[in-house]
Amino acid sequence: MEDSWANRSSAPARGAHVAGADLHLELDRGGGAGVRAALVRSLRDAVREGRLAPGTRLPSSRSLAVDLGIARNTVADAYGELVAEGWLTARQGSGTRVARRVVPAEPAPPRTPRAAARPRYDLTPGSPDVASFPRSAWLSAARRALTAAPSEAFGYGQPRGRIELRRVLADYLARARGVRAAPERIVVCAGFIQGLAVLSRVLRQAGHRAVAVESYGLDLHWNVMRRAGLDTVPLPVDGHGADVAELDRRSGVRAALLTPAHQFPTGVSLDPDRRAAVVDWAARTGGLVLEDDYDGEFRYDRQPVGALQGLDPERVVYLGTASKSLAPGLRIAWMVVPDHLMDALLALKGTGEWQSGALDQLTLAEFMDSGGYDRHLRGMRLRYRRRRDQLVAALADRAPEVEVTGIAAGLHAVLELPPGTERSVVQGAAWQGLALHGLARFRHPEAGEELRDALVFAYGTPPDHAFSGAIEALCRVLP
Amino acid sequence: MEDSWANRSSAPARGAHVAGADLHLELDRGGGAGVRAALVRSLRDAVREGRLAPGTRLPSSRSLAVDLGIARNTVADAYGELVAEGWLTARQGSGTRVARRVVPAEPAPPRTPRAAARPRYDLTPGSPDVASFPRSAWLSAARRALTAAPSEAFGYGQPRGRIELRRVLADYLARARGVRAAPERIVVCAGFIQGLAVLSRVLRQAGHRAVAVESYGLDLHWNVMRRAGLDTVPLPVDGHGADVAELDRRSGVRAALLTPAHQFPTGVSLDPDRRAAVVDWAARTGGLVLEDDYDGEFRYDRQPVGALQGLDPERVVYLGTASKSLAPGLRIAWMVVPDHLMDALLALKGTGEWQSGALDQLTLAEFMDSGGYDRHLRGMRLRYRRRRDQLVAALADRAPEVEVTGIAAGLHAVLELPPGTERSVVQGAAWQGLALHGLARFRHPEAGEELRDALVFAYGTPPDHAFSGAIEALCRVLP
Repeated sequence: MEDSWANRSSAPARGAHVAGADLHLELDRGGGAGVRAALVRSLRDAVREGRLAPGTRLPSSRSLAVDLGIARNTVADAYGELVAEGWLTARQGSGTRVARRVVPAEPAPPRTPRAAARPRYDLTPGSPDVASFPRSAWLSAARRALTAAPSEAFGYGQPRGRIELRRVLADYLARARGVRAAPERIVVCAGFIQGLAVLSRVLRQAGHRAVAVESYGLDLHWNVMRRAGLDTVPLPVDGHGADVAELDRRSGVRAALLTPAHQFPTGVSLDPDRRAAVVDWAARTGGLVLEDDYDGEFRYDRQPVGALQGLDPERVVYLGTASKSLAPGLRIAWMVVPDHLMDALLALKGTGEWQSGALDQLTLAEFMDSGGYDRHLRGMRLRYRRRRDQLVAALADRAPEVEVTGIAAGLHAVLELPPGTERSVVQGAAWQGLALHGLARFRHPEAGEELRDALVFAYGTPPDHAFSGAIEALCRVLP
Repeated sequence: MEDSWANRSSAPARGAHVAGADLHLELDRGGGAGVRAALVRSLRDAVREGRLAPGTRLPSSRSLAVDLGIARNTVADAYGELVAEGWLTARQGSGTRVARRVVPAEPAPPRTPRAAARPRYDLTPGSPDVASFPRSAWLSAARRALTAAPSEAFGYGQPRGRIELRRVLADYLARARGVRAAPERIVVCAGFIQGLAVLSRVLRQAGHRAVAVESYGLDLHWNVMRRAGLDTVPLPVDGHGADVAELDRRSGVRAALLTPAHQFPTGVSLDPDRRAAVVDWAARTGGLVLEDDYDGEFRYDRQPVGALQGLDPERVVYLGTASKSLAPGLRIAWMVVPDHLMDALLALKGTGEWQSGALDQLTLAEFMDSGGYDRHLRGMRLRYRRRRDQLVAALADRAPEVEVTGIAAGLHAVLELPPGTERSVVQGAAWQGLALHGLARFRHPEAGEELRDALVFAYGTPPDHAFSGAIEALCRVLP
């Protein structure tokens, strides 16, 4: 049975190179099962890398055992294992061969990530200052949560999310945002986008074909809805927020996604009359409002405006998130869901998204319950407010003709530019190493109102040490 | 302006009940902004709970301020806030009134969770022994991970998952499961179901209409695929695993979901010839195999059978999970994805599922890298093996006519029953407080082969202290 392959083997000693250029068996790892495993690995690698070509006949177990100075059974076991895995075949009369259909591995294709030059300052909105994540407070909360967790917390759980977190959230949302939320109305999800994706499918299932959105917003959100089979119909946005009176003129539309507390990205809050009107519209038409309360916690000059949801919990779905208040990396958000949608939503969420990681949920519950969350928010509110004031002062000094709006709340400001200049300013900013979007980037493709030229400046995003530099670079490119 | 409402107010002192039965204002919380906030809350609650009916005219700010013994501006501010939120309206000449469209809250409907009597012993498969979660080792890993994490880890991240985890997984999967996995081929997902859901949508998008599945399996998985628009076509399962030769007779089917290492739930492993045949089929037809390697780590009597994926990484998608090896509550699983599917998969995953929690991913990477994962697996392998042996011994002694199969690996066994007895045994088990499924529970509705009567006994699920009791209860109901 010794064929050309075995004859090419050079040194029979343990750890030596066997089979010349074809097969390098390194078996210097203890004895017994360790040798068998090492032999399996070596043979597998040799087949994989093409050093043993498909169809090649292997030496008999006896002869390879002698070559390697190991027990014959060890070789036979290894062959058996590789036959079971499909690397080798063993046929009566034709010995053990490398299976014919094993595809040799190409050298791993070096998928070079597109080498986008990293900007010096990231001023695109959507992320808080992640460098301020309260690591040690979070870790303490994690320790307490992990110690106190019942064993079942490590099991599959429910699509609704952990009850510990839902209880704490119900209190918090009622207190801080005026949301009417019982724990059984809350559904924890892995970020706003996941919540919106599930809700969109629920709406589509219920016969919705279109959702009204604000004419300025995030295409990511519009795409999520479109993927679920929903058209997005833009409502004009002006100084009082979205023009919800338009809803009555869009006959096919029975749902609207809004950012009432702090319109994204223009920064206005929805006018009291319009708040009333949109809830009226929903009650009158059986419509539904999806309230995206992404940064409701951050309001600087007076008490936060409470959530719209409190006005009519059966017609408003409230969506909040830890992505702005803590960190997007946690992937935790929450929905407060009307009763009539709950069963459909949980059924859909249960086939696909299921639940977020239980340990993070328990840790967040503990973090909120112990006051850590409120403390963190207070600290961040001060910090962001200082940054906003610094931005406003710098602009007043260096670019007095640029008006700053949308700064009563949130993590970004809108800098109004002279008509026709937005594009060149954004390009100039890129040259200065600033990742920065103009308002056009957030405009719905079917938006009807006049173009405004403006920059969206996310003062929340950069870490503290980079903030002054970012403002400095900005001032250099403003007209 | 003082109307009937104000006249009914009885006691003007701070903290007293104002407005008789209608309004209970509790304002005993410090001074300044605290009083304003307390007043807002009290008024909001009164409107919400219907104590202040829609249309009711409120006292003037001056008169309420006198009633409550607080500053008039405080009341005016509170009214202003509630007008901004839409609870109240303020119209020239008609004063401040409760808005008409505020829906009074019904008392929260006590959604009683269906009071399914909790079984004494849960022996349904799918979960490991969650009581054995390595809490303190995990917490240490979390501490190290959280300390070492770069700030950007707290940001949005990528749909692919954290590079730290993908690097460690690539090593682990190559070493322990024979998977050919470079970090850039790995996609972290929030559990097997999420991975399957995204893959199903990718397949549907690529024109697939049907996926072959094993005739015994989980309806949860079939439903996920069906929801993505894919039919499931069962392949018969026998003592050698799924009969993959059938694939050639299903002309419309170009993808198959299989559990090669340990068929779920029958427990056989896919025969070497069939492993070869299914990879051949995929290469010949441009087909795809989805390899569900749910419990590949747990094999007791010999080395684990390596993954099918290693035979042809461009035609096999490998799916593994931490749900069996650690805990389902983590919601972390991984896919090793062929190059030609990667872009479509990331694009779809990016609109909806995005990524799993970054901190758990980093912690798992640290846990694996430090050897904690291997240690945990070794310990659990011993523990599960002991349980399996205890089960086999008890049955040999107490129910010798029941044959135990599928026990070379995994966390469950199949107990073969005399024909026609499965249903009554499952019912009897329920009476004994055992949550236990018969094989029929896992049968595809279109399965063609003969019915087998058997129980699926998940010896991995109960905590250690309950295991002997569970076996005892089982033996009482066996024929």
